[in-house]
Amino acid sequence: MESAQLHRDAVVIDGLIIARFGREVFEDMRRGGLTAANCTCSVWEGIHGTLENLAWWEQAFREHADLIRPVHGTADVRAAKEEGRTGIILGWQNSSGIEDRLDFLPLFQRLGVRVIQITYNTQNYAGSGCYESSDSGLSDFGHDLVAEMNRLGILCDLSHVGPRTSRDVIEASRAPVAYTHCLPAGLKAHPRNKSDEELRFIADRGGFVGVTMFPPFLAKGSNAVVDDYVEAIEYVMNHAGTAQVGIGTDFTQGHDEAFFHWITHDKGIGRKLTEFGEIVNPEGMRRIGDFPNLTEAMLRRGWPEERVRGVLGENWLRFLGEVWQA
Amino acid sequence: MESAQLHRDAVVIDGLIIARFGREVFEDMRRGGLTAANCTCSVWEGIHGTLENLAWWEQAFREHADLIRPVHGTADVRAAKEEGRTGIILGWQNSSGIEDRLDFLPLFQRLGVRVIQITYNTQNYAGSGCYESSDSGLSDFGHDLVAEMNRLGILCDLSHVGPRTSRDVIEASRAPVAYTHCLPAGLKAHPRNKSDEELRFIADRGGFVGVTMFPPFLAKGSNAVVDDYVEAIEYVMNHAGTAQVGIGTDFTQGHDEAFFHWITHDKGIGRKLTEFGEIVNPEGMRRIGDFPNLTEAMLRRGWPEERVRGVLGENWLRFLGEVWQA
Repeated sequence: MESAQLHRDAVVIDGLIIARFGREVFEDMRRGGLTAANCTCSVWEGIHGTLENLAWWEQAFREHADLIRPVHGTADVRAAKEEGRTGIILGWQNSSGIEDRLDFLPLFQRLGVRVIQITYNTQNYAGSGCYESSDSGLSDFGHDLVAEMNRLGILCDLSHVGPRTSRDVIEASRAPVAYTHCLPAGLKAHPRNKSDEELRFIADRGGFVGVTMFPPFLAKGSNAVVDDYVEAIEYVMNHAGTAQVGIGTDFTQGHDEAFFHWITHDKGIGRKLTEFGEIVNPEGMRRIGDFPNLTEAMLRRGWPEERVRGVLGENWLRFLGEVWQA
Repeated sequence: MESAQLHRDAVVIDGLIIARFGREVFEDMRRGGLTAANCTCSVWEGIHGTLENLAWWEQAFREHADLIRPVHGTADVRAAKEEGRTGIILGWQNSSGIEDRLDFLPLFQRLGVRVIQITYNTQNYAGSGCYESSDSGLSDFGHDLVAEMNRLGILCDLSHVGPRTSRDVIEASRAPVAYTHCLPAGLKAHPRNKSDEELRFIADRGGFVGVTMFPPFLAKGSNAVVDDYVEAIEYVMNHAGTAQVGIGTDFTQGHDEAFFHWITHDKGIGRKLTEFGEIVNPEGMRRIGDFPNLTEAMLRRGWPEERVRGVLGENWLRFLGEVWQA
């Protein structure tokens, strides 16, 4: 099948987008042919701030119903494909959204939250982050959190989680877990990148790896092109298998400097955790609307159509169905 | 049909219970043959406190699934009847649960809240209460609140609302509204009781009146018997019509003095609003489990079976279907 046609026909799922959401981004999602995306609606926020974000989404679903729809299960992803809309999976990059109230988790699940990263960069009640100087592993509260997420069918995300806490979660979780957006340390050493061993460890236990193209974690940084992204995906596949790998771009489209200051400092306002420098997405994948170029690059690399379809979305969809049980 | 048999067969809906909820009360609801009840889960609480109460109910629905089930629409009430469980309608007696965040209302609707009283006893952002010295009517925020409740299919309750604010809500609301639990001022003058004119005013606009038996508002107070309750219901029917009247006991079963102190003081801790004195429910209706005696008293008064069924629950069910659109 010809590249553009294949892209239009495929289920395309982005395992992580943290853009400045609004009509412009939603229009670009349609341009990019996105069937669904895990959209971050909590990073450092507590209960109140997270509810504010969910209230924002409630209104967005009404105002932009021509472009987007909520996703509570895989049937909603299939429906989004048929309707020509983009399905929004509400996800958190931190478990701070429930603060110390584990009993609030079912409420947020009812409100549509389907992915939660256990920690974001630093230590919280549940465990440790990838920029913490020492990772003390999954706390008792963290064990309770994972068990409750399992019960509720919420995906555990480990992308920004520390290595020891990640290992603990992979072992503790009854359902398979994911790095929704990461790159291999084998191509560039970085606290956020995962070693070959880590990629195998999660995959061997049924887990999933969404591959990001966030420039600071790419070998060529802001000089990378879309083919370098495909190469990184292939590298991950060589360690995690072809069926358990998908996309997780980490598009930050539309955000300003204040946003990057906020995400790179502890709790948004504390100590500095990392410095990204200039962020220019790989040539060919500058914007969400460029997604069709990714399909073209995969075909250019000689991947068979089935593999392309798998990485674009079918792998994510199968995996999410297992975790969500819906 | 014989009284006990009729009660077993009927749909029985209580328009307001504010008991100390727990297994004992849920068991008594089954003993009383309750099909569904509007159970108060917010009085003076703000966002966080209300979420705590909803989290409590989440767990209650799991732990006591043999006795209760959530109600999000009238189909759930019919299902509760078939299953021999009591359907729980989550309701607020105040709009303080969203504080100043109207955009949080859809979130609480998703969490199952289906009845909201605009104000509780005193003035809030939306309007004025029945114990406020002067009722300034529905505020602009209050108008926005009513419109949003209409859109979301949440019932406006006016039982504790001031007379002017009540009138404003009845006129502003696109959907019919209710006094879920009130008594006629024609039988006893009291700030909480509604005049004949008020009963006609709400009913003429499609509204509903649930009749309470809370002793301080009954002519005979704590000396009343179940037949006095039936007389009060009949009085309301003579002004609001037979089809728009139902039950709203206001059972406070299991609560202690601290609870009554909390509900009779502004925001739970402020100025004293009223003094209830000793509260002894009407003989024959002392506890929720006594509900079958109410059916017997209605038949004893010579009501036809159809009217008994209507007042017990069918009237509520038809009305709630109109408001909820579900």
